[in-house]
Amino acid sequence: MAIKTDVVIVGAGPCGLFQVFELGLLDIHAHVVDALPQPGGQCAELYPDKPIYDIPAYPIIGAQELVDNLMEQIAPFKPEFHLAQMVEKLERREDGRFTLVTTAGTEFDTATVILAAGLGAFQPRRLKAPGAEAFEGESIHYSIKDPARFEGKNLVILGGGDSAMDWVIELHDRVESLTLVHRRPEYRAAPASVAKMKALAEAGKLREIHGMVREVRAENGRLAGLTVAEGAHDGELIEIDADEVCVFYGLSPNLGPIAEWGLDIDKRQVAVDTEKFQTSEPGIFAVGDINSYPGKKKLILSGFHEAALAAFAVQKHIDPDKRVFLQYTTTSPVMHERLGVKAEK
Amino acid sequence: MAIKTDVVIVGAGPCGLFQVFELGLLDIHAHVVDALPQPGGQCAELYPDKPIYDIPAYPIIGAQELVDNLMEQIAPFKPEFHLAQMVEKLERREDGRFTLVTTAGTEFDTATVILAAGLGAFQPRRLKAPGAEAFEGESIHYSIKDPARFEGKNLVILGGGDSAMDWVIELHDRVESLTLVHRRPEYRAAPASVAKMKALAEAGKLREIHGMVREVRAENGRLAGLTVAEGAHDGELIEIDADEVCVFYGLSPNLGPIAEWGLDIDKRQVAVDTEKFQTSEPGIFAVGDINSYPGKKKLILSGFHEAALAAFAVQKHIDPDKRVFLQYTTTSPVMHERLGVKAEK
Repeated sequence: MAIKTDVVIVGAGPCGLFQVFELGLLDIHAHVVDALPQPGGQCAELYPDKPIYDIPAYPIIGAQELVDNLMEQIAPFKPEFHLAQMVEKLERREDGRFTLVTTAGTEFDTATVILAAGLGAFQPRRLKAPGAEAFEGESIHYSIKDPARFEGKNLVILGGGDSAMDWVIELHDRVESLTLVHRRPEYRAAPASVAKMKALAEAGKLREIHGMVREVRAENGRLAGLTVAEGAHDGELIEIDADEVCVFYGLSPNLGPIAEWGLDIDKRQVAVDTEKFQTSEPGIFAVGDINSYPGKKKLILSGFHEAALAAFAVQKHIDPDKRVFLQYTTTSPVMHERLGVKAEK
Repeated sequence: MAIKTDVVIVGAGPCGLFQVFELGLLDIHAHVVDALPQPGGQCAELYPDKPIYDIPAYPIIGAQELVDNLMEQIAPFKPEFHLAQMVEKLERREDGRFTLVTTAGTEFDTATVILAAGLGAFQPRRLKAPGAEAFEGESIHYSIKDPARFEGKNLVILGGGDSAMDWVIELHDRVESLTLVHRRPEYRAAPASVAKMKALAEAGKLREIHGMVREVRAENGRLAGLTVAEGAHDGELIEIDADEVCVFYGLSPNLGPIAEWGLDIDKRQVAVDTEKFQTSEPGIFAVGDINSYPGKKKLILSGFHEAALAAFAVQKHIDPDKRVFLQYTTTSPVMHERLGVKAEK
C-alpha cells in the first residue's frame, strides 16, 4: 500500500532536516528517506566531532551537535523517517503526482519530491584494478561481516585509514599471511593504531607495502594474488599471493538512480532555478549540495535558505490557488501554534 | 582624511554582522556603519527578548542572544564599527571606487558598498496633521532631552506606548496642564504604567482623550493647540490648548539617502541578482531585508546566504583575476588561520 503524502524529502542531512522545518511552518508534513541508518547525512557520518565554524550565530559547533539541534527544532512537525534505504524508482503518475519506491520496498504516492541528497548516497570506494570486478562480493570485500572466513588465509588489506588499521590489528594472528598495501608512507588513521601496525610489521607479523594495485590475478577462476607497483606508478612490480582481499578506500558519494531520472544534471549537480529551487522536472525540487545555479557555493547555510524558498514553492505546487503570506515565528500566533509554543501570558 | 578600505557594510543587524564573517573568511576586512548606537539592528532594538524560532539549528533563540553570538563569531575578523551615524552621501569616484560620508563626518574611500540596512534607518514616526510641520523641532518633539522646558506649560502627549506613559508619569506634576491623546482605549504600554496613568487621570492630574489629531492650530506664529476628532475619524471635535506637543508614535524605517542613489528600487526594496546580490550599480551589493529578487522572503536565514554569496562577489570585484576556491571551515588550514583556530594536535 503506497503512503500518500504531499512531499518526500530524499536525504536526512542538515538541509533535508531543515527542509522538514520550513515545510512544517507552512503546515506541510514530510516523509524523509535516507540511505544511512540514522539522520545527519555525511556531516554526522564522516566527521561527527569535527567543529564547523560557519553556521551563522554558532562561533563553533560540532557536526553531530548541529544535527541534534536540527532534530530538536523539527520535532514539533513529527517527520516520518524511512532510513537505511535508497530511492530505487521514481516515476511520474498519470495524475501528475509521483510514485517513489525505496530499496526497502517503501512506496510513496507523493505530490512533490525534494532532493536533499548532498553528494548522493555514500558507498565504498571500489578497487578499480583490472580483474577486480569478477571477484567483488566473493573474494574482494568492502566490509567485514564474518572475520572467521579469513582464518588460515592469505589476506591482503588495502587502505591507510582507520578501518584498514583496525582490521590489520584484529586479524593479524588469525590469518596465514597478512599484507597491508597503502599508496604512500603516510597514513590517515589514528596515530596509536598506526604505531600498533608498525610494531606488527617490525615483528614480522605483517608485510607493509607502499604502492598501487595494478592487477588482480586469477588462477582457475579463483583469486590468486595482486600485482602492486611499488611507490609511484612506475615503481617496481611486486607479486603478492592472496586468497582474500579487503578494500578500505573510504566512502564515495553516488547519485544512484537519481542520475537516471531525466533531470538536468551537470557534474553530478542538479540544475535548479533560484526562485523555487525546482529542477527541470516540475514538482521535483533540489536543495543543498546536490543542486547547482549561478553563484552556487556548497555551504550548509545556503542549503537552509534554499530549503526555505523551496518550501514556499512546494506549498504553491500543492495548492496553487491558496495565497500564503510569510509569517514570522517571533510574532505570528499561527506559527506559534504550529511550533507548539505556549501563548504568552 | 578618508578611510581607505575594500568594503563598507551599511547596517549592523544580523545580516550585516554575518557579512563581516563571510568577508573575513575571504580575508577581506570590513567597516560597518549603523544609525543605532549599538550593533544588532531592528532585531535587538525592537524585540531583544522575544524568541525567534526559525534560525537554523536554534530551536529557540532571543534576538539579543543571536546578535551576541554573531558578534562573538565575527570577533576574529576585527570589524570596525562606526555607530550612531547614517550614510549621508555616496558618490562614485572617477577611479570607479566610492566616496561614502556619514552624518558624523566619517569619510570612506571604498572599493565596494554592501547595503544590509534592513528596512532602513529607524526614525520617529511623524505627526502628519495639517500645521504640524511648521513646529517640528520647535514646539513639537519626538524625543525629550530637557524635561525642564515643559515646566508651567500646557503639554499634550500623543501616543499609547511605553514612552508616552513614562513621560506622562514623569511630567504630570511639573506642567500647567497635561493631556494624553491616543487613538483608542487600548494601550501598548506595560500594564503597570497604564494603571499609573489611569490613576492620575482619575485624580484629575491628566486629561485622557481617545481620538485622532486633525489639525495643529497656531496663533501669532506660535503653537496654540490641537484639534482632535474623538473616537473614529468622524467623531466630535475637541479643542485642546497646547504650548508644547510630544509625539511618541514609535519608530518607522526610512531608507534615507539610499533612495536617491539611483539604484533600481521597488517598494523600498533594492533589486539584486541572485548570483552576486549586486544592485543595478556595479560595486554596490545588497543583502537581507533591503533587497529584492524573484522568490525573496524576508528571513534572517536568507540574509545569511545572501551575505555568503555577496562576499565572493565582492572578492571578485576587488581582485577579478584572483581565483578563489571555496574552502571549508571544518577542514581548511587557511580558514583555521583566519579564524584564529589553534591547529589540531
